Amino acid sequence: MKNLSNAAELELTDIFLRRWILRMTTAAGSGHPTSSLSAVEAMSVLLFGRDERERPFFRFDPTEPENPANDRLIFSKGHAAPLYYALWAAAGFIAPSELMTLRRFDSVLEGHPTRRFPLTEVPTGSLGQGLSVGLGMALLGQREKNDRARVFVLVGDGEMAEGQIWEAFALASYYNLSNLKVLVDVNRLGQCGQTMLGWRTDEYLRRARSFGWQAWEVDGADRFALAEAWSLADRADRPSVIFAKTRKGQGVSFLADADGWHGKALAEADLACALAELPETKERKPPVSLAGPLPLRRNSSRPSREEETHPATVEKVARSRGEKAAVRDAYGTALAELVAQREEVVVLDAETSNSTCADRAREVCPERFFEMFIAEQNMVSAAVGMARRGKHPFVSTFAAFITRAADQIRMAQYAEVPITFVGSHPGVSIGADGSSQMGLEDLALFGALRESVIFYPADATTMDKVVKLAADCPGISYIRSTRATLPVIYADEDFVVGGSRVHLDTPKDVAAIVAAGVTLHEALVAADDLAKEGISCRVLDLYCLRPLDKEALRAAAETGLIVAVEDHYERGGLGQAVGTFLAAENIDCDFRHLFVSRPPRSGTTEQLLAYERIDAEAIKKTVREALSER
Amino acid sequence: MKNLSNAAELELTDIFLRRWILRMTTAAGSGHPTSSLSAVEAMSVLLFGRDERERPFFRFDPTEPENPANDRLIFSKGHAAPLYYALWAAAGFIAPSELMTLRRFDSVLEGHPTRRFPLTEVPTGSLGQGLSVGLGMALLGQREKNDRARVFVLVGDGEMAEGQIWEAFALASYYNLSNLKVLVDVNRLGQCGQTMLGWRTDEYLRRARSFGWQAWEVDGADRFALAEAWSLADRADRPSVIFAKTRKGQGVSFLADADGWHGKALAEADLACALAELPETKERKPPVSLAGPLPLRRNSSRPSREEETHPATVEKVARSRGEKAAVRDAYGTALAELVAQREEVVVLDAETSNSTCADRAREVCPERFFEMFIAEQNMVSAAVGMARRGKHPFVSTFAAFITRAADQIRMAQYAEVPITFVGSHPGVSIGADGSSQMGLEDLALFGALRESVIFYPADATTMDKVVKLAADCPGISYIRSTRATLPVIYADEDFVVGGSRVHLDTPKDVAAIVAAGVTLHEALVAADDLAKEGISCRVLDLYCLRPLDKEALRAAAETGLIVAVEDHYERGGLGQAVGTFLAAENIDCDFRHLFVSRPPRSGTTEQLLAYERIDAEAIKKTVREALSER
Repeated sequence: MKNLSNAAELELTDIFLRRWILRMTTAAGSGHPTSSLSAVEAMSVLLFGRDERERPFFRFDPTEPENPANDRLIFSKGHAAPLYYALWAAAGFIAPSELMTLRRFDSVLEGHPTRRFPLTEVPTGSLGQGLSVGLGMALLGQREKNDRARVFVLVGDGEMAEGQIWEAFALASYYNLSNLKVLVDVNRLGQCGQTMLGWRTDEYLRRARSFGWQAWEVDGADRFALAEAWSLADRADRPSVIFAKTRKGQGVSFLADADGWHGKALAEADLACALAELPETKERKPPVSLAGPLPLRRNSSRPSREEETHPATVEKVARSRGEKAAVRDAYGTALAELVAQREEVVVLDAETSNSTCADRAREVCPERFFEMFIAEQNMVSAAVGMARRGKHPFVSTFAAFITRAADQIRMAQYAEVPITFVGSHPGVSIGADGSSQMGLEDLALFGALRESVIFYPADATTMDKVVKLAADCPGISYIRSTRATLPVIYADEDFVVGGSRVHLDTPKDVAAIVAAGVTLHEALVAADDLAKEGISCRVLDLYCLRPLDKEALRAAAETGLIVAVEDHYERGGLGQAVGTFLAAENIDCDFRHLFVSRPPRSGTTEQLLAYERIDAEAIKKTVREALSER
Repeated sequence: MKNLSNAAELELTDIFLRRWILRMTTAAGSGHPTSSLSAVEAMSVLLFGRDERERPFFRFDPTEPENPANDRLIFSKGHAAPLYYALWAAAGFIAPSELMTLRRFDSVLEGHPTRRFPLTEVPTGSLGQGLSVGLGMALLGQREKNDRARVFVLVGDGEMAEGQIWEAFALASYYNLSNLKVLVDVNRLGQCGQTMLGWRTDEYLRRARSFGWQAWEVDGADRFALAEAWSLADRADRPSVIFAKTRKGQGVSFLADADGWHGKALAEADLACALAELPETKERKPPVSLAGPLPLRRNSSRPSREEETHPATVEKVARSRGEKAAVRDAYGTALAELVAQREEVVVLDAETSNSTCADRAREVCPERFFEMFIAEQNMVSAAVGMARRGKHPFVSTFAAFITRAADQIRMAQYAEVPITFVGSHPGVSIGADGSSQMGLEDLALFGALRESVIFYPADATTMDKVVKLAADCPGISYIRSTRATLPVIYADEDFVVGGSRVHLDTPKDVAAIVAAGVTLHEALVAADDLAKEGISCRVLDLYCLRPLDKEALRAAAETGLIVAVEDHYERGGLGQAVGTFLAAENIDCDFRHLFVSRPPRSGTTEQLLAYERIDAEAIKKTVREALSER
């Protein structure tokens, strides 16, 4: 047979897949059987098909999933999890009986694929992200000359409406990622009705081709046509996509292309009818197997140090207290040093690298710098993909615009990978550009995650150190950078995750001012001024906002007054973290919180800090008022 | 002259625009002169050009900006604000001398356009959003048969990388918004270097056409070509886009297409050189004027009540305490009632309306329901556009996926419009679908805004009422919906913004359990059980999480113990709000916070509430422990 030598085995396999998809979802009482059924042929031909020369389309060793020579399979339409798990059962990786544990609390077969199932590349389920994750893996593979391993992504037609998909289409074409191969399951029906384009695969084709991709349309129930398409994709010299016209519920008469079945498991009676249409098999492993990976080429994987364009040496900057230094410059220098020293560090930036100063890393090591253009969602998901292949990405843009990828960051936390985000230009202190450019919710964004480490360095020395600390964080970390040039406060390296620094503390302190970043400088000025009035205040530099330095806060509370001051909106930042800590520890201490409360606008840094009442004057006033109320 | 009758006046106008762009940015010491210069010809032809029959391309009355017959102009590339302001000076709306206040604290001419400048349609500056705002206005205009007023959007080429742009392209084509007219300023250079496509306008053309748009490419310095393109756009029967090949810094020899000038004001010496190239004028208002709007067609604006497909009657649901009712169902019913009663209410949903129950509104009033498909970013910005035209949008999807539009929500707060967001399926309580579908950061997202009202109803009655309360909120409000069917708790209507409800309070209460939504039911069970043990606890239903009911919290604190329990991650939700309040009020009260702390997974609601220790058992244990420590 043309292009497909094992069609008969695949026919049996597809019955196996369908029967288990239906049985496991009915057992679970929920799930997406019809969205799984539509992609059965497409995925079984990919994973288990052999062309006319018995060559496989997909190569993967499930006993060694992290082998860099493996192809990758990502289900961007994560709700097709029943198909995903059934495929691995067909491959012999899990017992079919385990499928019946789908969605149970004690099962690793969750409602959408998560890392608890060992072969899951990345958790999916928030639509439109899986393609970008695959792009990240493909882009890394290209840079590392690992060109035999391909990345396959199953995309749903509903999620083609997500802009992130087109961010990925544009960038994959820009970098000509011929190792990225996509199949779109055009089953026409979304959750509530027909998708925007329905079955108009010609429209999809035109769009994909206009974005520089090789693209084909096929009947997604025709194994030979699918094999032909996978063969073409195999030989593609550009990113490639197959639009498979399928039917939601494909393979079961009363489910196929029928409305009202989205995300619904069959009742037992319906299940019996459906299974009756699928010729009985013994439901053991079908007669197919996965092909293992080809060996890596000699020149693949990481380029050796000698191959790198630039010798990896960065001059260490010596700084002394009091000199002025831009904190974001320090980020660039520290990052350049880091990328030169540590092979696992990669840098991604959204066309802002001359502002974030991530461009210094590009100068030192262009091989591990990725220009992701103004497409933050794709950047973040691609970083997740690189992280899953062993990298530690540093991902930077303006603090305001990092919020663009909030959902991708939310999903990144479930990928169990190290990623450091860096937001420059936070707060009203950026001045004249105005509110649209001011990151005033960024601390809340990263704080809202279940776990994260959050740094907010107040000077160049601290930035230098927290970059290194972040590089050792196993999960998500965030560094709030600062645009301004500020005096260097520290000459030493005594910074740790969960640490803080105390200034001006004496046994007779009557207040503690807790600040970070730009407001720390205001706090120091305020404390100096207050000291002249005979009011002795300590200043706590909370350069690590999460985890909190509880010991330092307890000590600060002993003064009887804590004034927290931050260049951020009221909720989710420094003040609420400190306030909640005081409440939870049941500490009796007067607490005052200064934050950005008025509508921000253009102006100078000084004007805006004063207008928002987060400057030295506001701090002094607050301390004086609090003391007068004692 | 072909298609442009006033080229000579426009030439003078463009000199005026260029001189002021350069002068005002130099005076400000910052800004984006070169990004403004590239679009000078394109925008002056649009605003002030007249075709061969003396017909204008743009119609707007600056003395009556809210006139529905006005065309609209949105600068999606908000950093071209100097050009934007200069255009209004050329139109005579502001004095040229006022331009010299650009970016000053006391000026309404902010670094990026904001509502403080009275003609700004919506604040822009986060790239890729302005087109969607325009789409929202155009879509509303289409529905209201206001087809003479067009929406014009200036888009930068750098922001074409944002996925949201393609969400808008896809949807504008789907709804065939022929009243939406876009010009892309293809000046080739981004912030750090060349954009992905550079000057390859043929590639842009192909992409736009594949998305169903009419598209043309022109030399963006050629006024006649631009006029020809605007004429074609004027006659377009589909959404249309002009790709204008321009030069960044166009019109000044040493700036044009030169690297390194992004976002930089000229030094005085450079300014003098530049102005010397621009033939002297008196820099008063140039000899052009804006055309006023055509009168509305008789059948335009809002369809009268009789024209609406369905008579606007919705049966009021009577509920009694104890009966079971799905909270999301109550949302659907309340929304349907609201949309039938209030013409300003519009409903947008991201292809989840059968889950969020927003589909009930569609049934009652299809004219004011907008299916936005799975493209949350475009949905939110489009809602901002509709809100600016006098509507109150209710925007719904899963709570988890609303985070997709965090940056758009951030920008929405600066638009000074009423929008209600509704997130369904929050928390681990959704059960089997797993972590990707669980909104666990949504309260933090809306809480992080400078101002917002946040509701989290625990039963159908409360949902019913908060929908009405939200409809009266002047700014951003958020309703956290709930998937589960829960017992009805209330039979009355005593709910207010900033309110709460107290249960089981007695003078001998030794603890207060503060909860909302699904955890309120756990709290009530816990309190009942504890009462049997002789431990008297009150329960506070914090159905409004922002603003907080401070009085009720103060009273609760008098019990000496507050246990806050929520189906949300630790930071940014109910617990931190309460904790910070207690600290800020300096209230001496034991405070315990129960929240989602373990990695969430699939399971039943009961299993997950127990696993996360936010169920009745966990509450009881916490109360007992706290009391034993007294």
